[in-house]
Amino acid sequence: MSDKTTVGVGMVGYAFMGRVHSQAWRSVGAFFDLPLVPRMAVLAGRSKERTEAAAAQLGWADVETDWRELVRRDDVQIVDICTPGDSHAEIAIAALQAGKHVICEKPLANTVAEAEAMVAAAAGAAGKSMVAFNYRRVPAVALARRYVEDGRIGEIRHVRAAYLQDWIVDPEFPLVWRLQKDKAGAGALGDIGSHIVDAAQFITGELVVGVSALTETFIKERPLAEESAGLAATGSATKGPVTVDDAALFIGRLSGGGLASFEATRFANGRKNAMRMEIFGSRGSLAFDFEAMNELWVSSGGGGFERILVTEPDHPYAGAWWPPGHGLGYEHTFTHEVRDFLEAVATGADPTPSFADGLRVQRVLAAVEQSAAEDSRYTNVED
Amino acid sequence: MSDKTTVGVGMVGYAFMGRVHSQAWRSVGAFFDLPLVPRMAVLAGRSKERTEAAAAQLGWADVETDWRELVRRDDVQIVDICTPGDSHAEIAIAALQAGKHVICEKPLANTVAEAEAMVAAAAGAAGKSMVAFNYRRVPAVALARRYVEDGRIGEIRHVRAAYLQDWIVDPEFPLVWRLQKDKAGAGALGDIGSHIVDAAQFITGELVVGVSALTETFIKERPLAEESAGLAATGSATKGPVTVDDAALFIGRLSGGGLASFEATRFANGRKNAMRMEIFGSRGSLAFDFEAMNELWVSSGGGGFERILVTEPDHPYAGAWWPPGHGLGYEHTFTHEVRDFLEAVATGADPTPSFADGLRVQRVLAAVEQSAAEDSRYTNVED
Amino acid sequence: MSDKTTVGVGMVGYAFMGRVHSQAWRSVGAFFDLPLVPRMAVLAGRSKERTEAAAAQLGWADVETDWRELVRRDDVQIVDICTPGDSHAEIAIAALQAGKHVICEKPLANTVAEAEAMVAAAAGAAGKSMVAFNYRRVPAVALARRYVEDGRIGEIRHVRAAYLQDWIVDPEFPLVWRLQKDKAGAGALGDIGSHIVDAAQFITGELVVGVSALTETFIKERPLAEESAGLAATGSATKGPVTVDDAALFIGRLSGGGLASFEATRFANGRKNAMRMEIFGSRGSLAFDFEAMNELWVSSGGGGFERILVTEPDHPYAGAWWPPGHGLGYEHTFTHEVRDFLEAVATGADPTPSFADGLRVQRVLAAVEQSAAEDSRYTNVED
Amino acid sequence: MSDKTTVGVGMVGYAFMGRVHSQAWRSVGAFFDLPLVPRMAVLAGRSKERTEAAAAQLGWADVETDWRELVRRDDVQIVDICTPGDSHAEIAIAALQAGKHVICEKPLANTVAEAEAMVAAAAGAAGKSMVAFNYRRVPAVALARRYVEDGRIGEIRHVRAAYLQDWIVDPEFPLVWRLQKDKAGAGALGDIGSHIVDAAQFITGELVVGVSALTETFIKERPLAEESAGLAATGSATKGPVTVDDAALFIGRLSGGGLASFEATRFANGRKNAMRMEIFGSRGSLAFDFEAMNELWVSSGGGGFERILVTEPDHPYAGAWWPPGHGLGYEHTFTHEVRDFLEAVATGADPTPSFADGLRVQRVLAAVEQSAAEDSRYTNVED
Repeated sequence: MSDKTTVGVGMVGYAFMGRVHSQAWRSVGAFFDLPLVPRMAVLAGRSKERTEAAAAQLGWADVETDWRELVRRDDVQIVDICTPGDSHAEIAIAALQAGKHVICEKPLANTVAEAEAMVAAAAGAAGKSMVAFNYRRVPAVALARRYVEDGRIGEIRHVRAAYLQDWIVDPEFPLVWRLQKDKAGAGALGDIGSHIVDAAQFITGELVVGVSALTETFIKERPLAEESAGLAATGSATKGPVTVDDAALFIGRLSGGGLASFEATRFANGRKNAMRMEIFGSRGSLAFDFEAMNELWVSSGGGGFERILVTEPDHPYAGAWWPPGHGLGYEHTFTHEVRDFLEAVATGADPTPSFADGLRVQRVLAAVEQSAAEDSRYTNVED
Repeated sequence: MSDKTTVGVGMVGYAFMGRVHSQAWRSVGAFFDLPLVPRMAVLAGRSKERTEAAAAQLGWADVETDWRELVRRDDVQIVDICTPGDSHAEIAIAALQAGKHVICEKPLANTVAEAEAMVAAAAGAAGKSMVAFNYRRVPAVALARRYVEDGRIGEIRHVRAAYLQDWIVDPEFPLVWRLQKDKAGAGALGDIGSHIVDAAQFITGELVVGVSALTETFIKERPLAEESAGLAATGSATKGPVTVDDAALFIGRLSGGGLASFEATRFANGRKNAMRMEIFGSRGSLAFDFEAMNELWVSSGGGGFERILVTEPDHPYAGAWWPPGHGLGYEHTFTHEVRDFLEAVATGADPTPSFADGLRVQRVLAAVEQSAAEDSRYTNVED
Repeated sequence: MSDKTTVGVGMVGYAFMGRVHSQAWRSVGAFFDLPLVPRMAVLAGRSKERTEAAAAQLGWADVETDWRELVRRDDVQIVDICTPGDSHAEIAIAALQAGKHVICEKPLANTVAEAEAMVAAAAGAAGKSMVAFNYRRVPAVALARRYVEDGRIGEIRHVRAAYLQDWIVDPEFPLVWRLQKDKAGAGALGDIGSHIVDAAQFITGELVVGVSALTETFIKERPLAEESAGLAATGSATKGPVTVDDAALFIGRLSGGGLASFEATRFANGRKNAMRMEIFGSRGSLAFDFEAMNELWVSSGGGGFERILVTEPDHPYAGAWWPPGHGLGYEHTFTHEVRDFLEAVATGADPTPSFADGLRVQRVLAAVEQSAAEDSRYTNVED
Repeated sequence: MSDKTTVGVGMVGYAFMGRVHSQAWRSVGAFFDLPLVPRMAVLAGRSKERTEAAAAQLGWADVETDWRELVRRDDVQIVDICTPGDSHAEIAIAALQAGKHVICEKPLANTVAEAEAMVAAAAGAAGKSMVAFNYRRVPAVALARRYVEDGRIGEIRHVRAAYLQDWIVDPEFPLVWRLQKDKAGAGALGDIGSHIVDAAQFITGELVVGVSALTETFIKERPLAEESAGLAATGSATKGPVTVDDAALFIGRLSGGGLASFEATRFANGRKNAMRMEIFGSRGSLAFDFEAMNELWVSSGGGGFERILVTEPDHPYAGAWWPPGHGLGYEHTFTHEVRDFLEAVATGADPTPSFADGLRVQRVLAAVEQSAAEDSRYTNVED
């Protein structure tokens, strides 16, 4: 392996997303035969002390306290953006302008305008760019896509997409950044709704062309947060307004003529990370729930649904890991993501999902917000 | 039992619904201690020969070829209407005017106007009336209602209701009456959408107050049917237009402030009778799928969902049947229905769901159709 | 139907089994096109008052307080034996000698000797005879048998059979007749172990040829029961010895070279009626759990197991009932049983499972008891 | 982290087990706050070229072609043995004698005698020792143990343990080392039967005290293997005898008075890695299947079983990883294992499972083999 070209990675942010991206960079070379070997070069964060501690724990060789410095470094060829959505555009555009390859966490940006600027920057850039909709790299989701491509499902009649979580059911859960519009852009809609819009478009190979939407914020005020890294936080006695949606429901039409429903909520008591897709076609059907992520359910239209344990050697990504029946976990979706990104960088291919794909998701979210604001009126998604 | 008062039942129609209602009337007395013993007096149908054959097989003592005659008979105190929706209003109103008790299959009628007339007739009548939303009498659904009433679920945040079938996925499936607007009133919306609207309102104890909707007819023309009893039919070479929806998706708001989604489709390939309810509340959650009708899933808000096998002696209806773990089937929901109806007739109580409940469902369906026709605009349900 | 021959049925016993058999006789004609129409002629029980009340509720035309009288009656052609095992042999032999057809509840008898006498009586009799292993008539179990017959499963390598209940976990549950060897013959072994031995032999088409066994009685003494009809009973302060097994585990060999395990227990806390079969063959596999009785799981040997909802028109028995997805319950297995019995009586065919099949199961149970008594030594089943 | 003591690890073997252990050593520090930081110092293998390639890919700093050299190195404090069972004793004893800490893959050895020698060596050694029954560190399994310890399950009445795989169903699958007694010691019994014996003893806190057993080799001869790293291999035209069991079934008694069944097979067509435990107690019950490894099913004895997604912060190990609902995979059990081992080494505690625990499992396997050889006679497990 020593004769392989290495590529330096610089990561911005080290909270939840930064931790899982680190594990991906650290592990990918042990399981995949890579054309480029990633080197975990630099981690950027605002606090020197905390960034250094994170770098030590997560395995990054150096730190920066300003992402601009990271972007400038010669030992960094790939910039991996794991910050909240409000800084995605600025960092990504700067990195692309500096000739770097960019992986950016989802949603691509907090507004369509930002996302458009990012797409423009990506279009003219030497570096490759990808938005990190990691669920595309769940083996079962990738297998679902394969089945649709192979024609096993036929014409898509109906997509049922849901992303159900419950981590803010408690009214005392504090006002973390994910509940503030200026930082997060949107609530359940942007955070997890974006995933199911992307997954639906990815698996079906179609676009959501119009939507009708309802959104709701059940708990209007929450204790101010003493923010810390990760999702966890502790609340204070003072309250502040929740400025994003707690739940977003929308129905829509697909470019192929089918119907679709989307439900993103953080109030589904007892559901922890139920990212679900149920897809009904003229020839067959598919069902998936991330809470049982190693399973894909497939019907060929008779009286049965087959539970496929997606761990066979010929299943997407699965052959790189363990024998059949030895399942994968959440983090592996990111390992697959960086593997495919490295492959694209090495071969000069355009990685997917592209920034343009991310923008398309953003436009769907924007249409959802517009519909919700206009009496749920059916709203076409801009192209 | 010989000293108990008997009550004569006259049933109109002997297709799918007539067969299952007959089994209910035939069986109910063997399992429940009834205040009134039903006598299967008369069956009405248009063809004398076929009606007589059906009566012999299903256990009815006599036949009529005109339902008006059945309504007039002195040995009939209960009229059980199992015809398509276009004749519900006429028969039910005549029966009520003749002083009979009436059970009417769902949906209550094909139009809001008809349903209003039925409610008016019921209001002034001596007889009792009920609309046969049988899924309320699935033990698991009744248990779900009990849990909401007991406060175990808390404030309802989100209802996910779906009714998924696939019996017309094949474009060669013929144009049976259920696919013709003049006979059936609506398609998936009226036939199965009505069930999930009623079930959602029943379990939550709330009303759907407004909706935004999309409907679609995927197969616009089908072979003309050589109609026969039941769902089965054979097609001819000539085609006719499908005049009802194949699928209806709508989202809405509940009277208590929660959101709800409804999906009724006959194109869910591989789903046979998946009448599903998933209800998320501030304190707990519920999930149900009729394809596993003896199970209710309950969360108390932690990391778990409990699968309750609803066959314990203290579960609704279950104690009348077999020991725990010995499940019930589809037909038992009707046995429970006629049992509760007989109880109401005997005690003078008003059975539920009432015609007014049926009208309320009809108004939701009307709002759905209006929203679908007006660009999915959010449409308030009339009260 | 009026021109069809009727056949009189006399039933002995009206507790749990009597209730479910009554429902079968009552319902079968409404769903199956029968060659012979059953007439529910006579019910026999010891107490006149209780037998009359049961007859009125369950729909029997007349009563007898001595089963010998029932056997003698000219209006009885079929004798249906629903008593505890200690009286099976006497009643069945008398009925066969009187020229009647006999359905006998399982296990066939309390001892091999009794079962042998019954087989001898059946061999020389004019009447047909059947032992009521009703689980053969679960549509999913019958479908499993069909798949094995069709060669889809290949050579049987391994059968995992379990019957898990929990109704006597509580040490205060009283000493009902099922816990007394003189009445019940055996405990979990005879009551539910017999079902899984029969089902394993039925589905595979093979015999259990030898066994090694362990049995245990966890609660040695229980409050004496104030016995009443059915399983339910109340306990007194005085205790008596439990003289049957609480659980029986045995492993064995099949005639085709495969291995098998059997576990029958009434101490599987939380399992209510989990009659399970898992069958692994050289070409495919099957899995079934009665707690989800409308489902059969089938593997063709790849990475998947297909959940088949056994409600399609071409599935065994299912076509006689409701549209796909509208499941059946426990009682329907008995309806199928009497339907097949009537068919055999009408056509002169030998119904299955025969008394000889029942004896074969009895011999397996005897080998289990012998092995358990002899240090679990492998014990061949007599032929 | 730089001020923490590091500890050098030397690993012997780099096939399936070596790959997963490497991932554990590589990842553990990023997720757990370790008292000792592992350094991946040396990898030993017979072929220099292949070992060097493996070391490069898996992240080991140096290589040795003789494990004896590895054991002698000063920069190695922990020896991790990932070879087939026939070399475990020799390597482990040498390592312990050299003052190293030892983690040894399971089963501990191929014979009881070897295992005894290892226990003796461990008893007198300065280093810590552990046998790598990784399934103890599945969060759901560790949670099951916690529930038993807390008394939630009560007295154990019945354990149903099974380990179902299907990777040698095809008679053309070649004669790899795992099918040869001299290398593997036993077949399904040793490889996977050992896991369920250990897990049953671990969760219940009891011992298997006696067994009655049947074993079988369905395919007696297989194509000779062109052996390569991992499970995969290609077969030649020449055949050789399979000298281990394909399946082993045994029933037994637990030290607390309960019964237990164990089934280990490589012929469960369609089951990939179904390591299952079902445990019934006087107060509650547990069920687990590794094919859905993030779930534990728990009953409190009523009509329900609760599916717990074992990803909550207070669940064993889970808090170190991702938010609730973001599941773990197979490899994480090893990460937890090395974490606990490092903890024990740092604190001076004795890690579990100890070599003595491994020997106890070995004695159960020996009793199984003896019973199988002696007509399934009940055989006490030596203490």
